[in-house]
Amino acid sequence: MNGKSNVEEVAKIYSGIQAEICRSLEQADGKAFFREDRWEKENGYGITCVIDHGDAIEKGGVNFSFVNGAFTPQLENILGEKANSYSVTGISSIMHPVSPHLPIIHMNVRYFSLDNGTQWFGGGIDLTPHYIDVHEAGHFHRQLKQICDKYDTGFYPQFKQWADDYFFIPHRNETRGVGGIFFDRLKPNGSINFEQLLAFTMDISRAYPALYGSIAQGKKRKQYGASQKKWQELRRGRYVEFNLIYDRGTKFGFDSNGNAESILISLPATAAWEYKNEVPPGSAEYETLQLLRKNIDWIKFQ
Amino acid sequence: MNGKSNVEEVAKIYSGIQAEICRSLEQADGKAFFREDRWEKENGYGITCVIDHGDAIEKGGVNFSFVNGAFTPQLENILGEKANSYSVTGISSIMHPVSPHLPIIHMNVRYFSLDNGTQWFGGGIDLTPHYIDVHEAGHFHRQLKQICDKYDTGFYPQFKQWADDYFFIPHRNETRGVGGIFFDRLKPNGSINFEQLLAFTMDISRAYPALYGSIAQGKKRKQYGASQKKWQELRRGRYVEFNLIYDRGTKFGFDSNGNAESILISLPATAAWEYKNEVPPGSAEYETLQLLRKNIDWIKFQ
Repeated sequence: MNGKSNVEEVAKIYSGIQAEICRSLEQADGKAFFREDRWEKENGYGITCVIDHGDAIEKGGVNFSFVNGAFTPQLENILGEKANSYSVTGISSIMHPVSPHLPIIHMNVRYFSLDNGTQWFGGGIDLTPHYIDVHEAGHFHRQLKQICDKYDTGFYPQFKQWADDYFFIPHRNETRGVGGIFFDRLKPNGSINFEQLLAFTMDISRAYPALYGSIAQGKKRKQYGASQKKWQELRRGRYVEFNLIYDRGTKFGFDSNGNAESILISLPATAAWEYKNEVPPGSAEYETLQLLRKNIDWIKFQ
Repeated sequence: MNGKSNVEEVAKIYSGIQAEICRSLEQADGKAFFREDRWEKENGYGITCVIDHGDAIEKGGVNFSFVNGAFTPQLENILGEKANSYSVTGISSIMHPVSPHLPIIHMNVRYFSLDNGTQWFGGGIDLTPHYIDVHEAGHFHRQLKQICDKYDTGFYPQFKQWADDYFFIPHRNETRGVGGIFFDRLKPNGSINFEQLLAFTMDISRAYPALYGSIAQGKKRKQYGASQKKWQELRRGRYVEFNLIYDRGTKFGFDSNGNAESILISLPATAAWEYKNEVPPGSAEYETLQLLRKNIDWIKFQ
C-alpha cells in the first residue's frame, strides 16, 4: 500500500476493527448490544455504534469515520501543514461504566493523508478511574508498554509522557485519570514504515476491548453505595470539562462540520457539579485526588 | 468619576449590587440562603456567593470580581486592543432552578479599563427555559426593552440581535434559550457618557433578581413528573456545552488564570446526555425545540 489510495485501505481495515471491538465489548458487558447508526455528509461518512443500559457499560460509543475536506486556514493552524485537501479515517471510542468501581476508558486511532503526500498516524488510549487502583493502572500500563515495545522501545516512554501532558485539566490542575499513551504525527520514516505504523494502531485498537473486558470482569459485581455513586457523577463532570474545553478531537470534529451527536457520544449519561466539593483526608476519594498527577511511573505497581 | 480611578468606584458599586441581588434572590427562593466565599489571588480578588438546595433554586451563584493584569498577546487577540495592563470588575450570575417549569437565568455586567485610558462596559441577561412559555419570554423581553429605552432606543434592537447571535450553539443549530440582551465594548462617547452607561448596567443587574422572582413566584409550585425532569437534565446538558465550548467569559476566566470553582459555578448540579434523544411531534418538548431559533420577535407575545 502506498500513495493516495492508502486511506481507502486503512478505512476498510479500521471499519472492520470497529465491528470487532463492538462484538468484544458486548461479550465483556454480557447484557447490552450495540446499535449501528450510519451517517453520510457531503464530505464523508461514518458508522456510530452506541451501547447503553448494559450490565457493566452505562453508555458508550464506538465511532468509525472517513472524512475528506478542503484544507482551511483553521486546519493549517491546528495541524501546522500546508495542503489543498485532506482525508482522515479513524476509530474513536469511550465507555462510561455503571459502577463507580470501573474506570472510564477511551481509545482513538486515526490516519491522516494530505493531497501533497504527507501522511501520519495518531491515537491513544487512556484510563479514567473514578477510584484509582494502582495495580489496575500498573497492569494497564504494562500491557501498553508491551504493545509499544514490539515496534520501538522508545515509544512507550515518549507516548506515556505525551498522554500525561495531553490528558490534563489545567484549570483543575489534575490529570484526567491514570493516563496511558498518546501519539500524533507519527510519519513513516527510515526506521518505521507505513505497514508497521498501521499494525501498531491495529494492535492498540484490538487490545482496547480486551483490556476493558478484563477490568470489568473483575469488578463489575463489587458493591457500592450512594456516596460512591455521587463521587462518580462529580468525576464525570471533570470528564465533560476536559472533553468540551480541551479535547482536540472534539474541536476538530466541530471545526470540520462533523456530526455533533457522534462527536458528543463521548459524554456520560449523567454528570454532576458541586461548588468546592471536599473529601476527607485519608478517604478513597482523597487518595484518588492525590494520584491525579503527571509523571507517576505506573508500571512499577505490580 | 473619570480616569484611572473609575474602576475602583465601579467595583465598589458592583460589589454592593451583588449583595442586593443575593438578598432579593433569597426572598424569591423563600428557603435557601447564600453563603459567601472570598478569594484573593496576586492579581485580584472576588466574592463568590453560592446558593443551593433551595425551594426554587437548585444551584446558583452570584460572582463579583475585580482583577488586574498584564495585557498578554492572548488578550490582545481576544479584545482587539493594545495596552500594557487592564483592570476589570464585574458581576456574573446564573441560577439553575429545581423545577423544569422554571427557566435557567443568567446575568452579567462588567467594566473594563485599560492603562491607555480606553474603557468600556459589557454585559447581558438571558433566559433559558426548559419549556418555552412565549408569554413569559414576551414579558421578559418587554422589561429589558423598557430598561434599554431609558438610555437609547437603539439599544434593545441591537442588543437583542447580539444576544440571538451570542447565545447560540452552532453544533446543535439551536439558540441557548429565548435570548435577552447582550452588549460589549460600550464606550462612553458623544451621545452617552460614562455615568449613563454605568447606570444602564446597574439597572440591568437590579432588574435581574426582580425578573427572576416574578417568574419563580408564578411557577415554582407547578407539578411535574419524571419525564419532565429528564428533559430538564438533557437541556442542562446543552447549557454545559454552551458554557464550556463557546462562552467567552469562561474562556477569559481560564485565560486570565481565574478561580476555576467560581467560574464553573455556572454549571448545573446535574446534567444528562443521550445519543439522539427524540421527542414526539406536538409535545411540549417538541414545541420548545421549534422555538430555539434566532430572530423571533418575542416582544409581540403578550
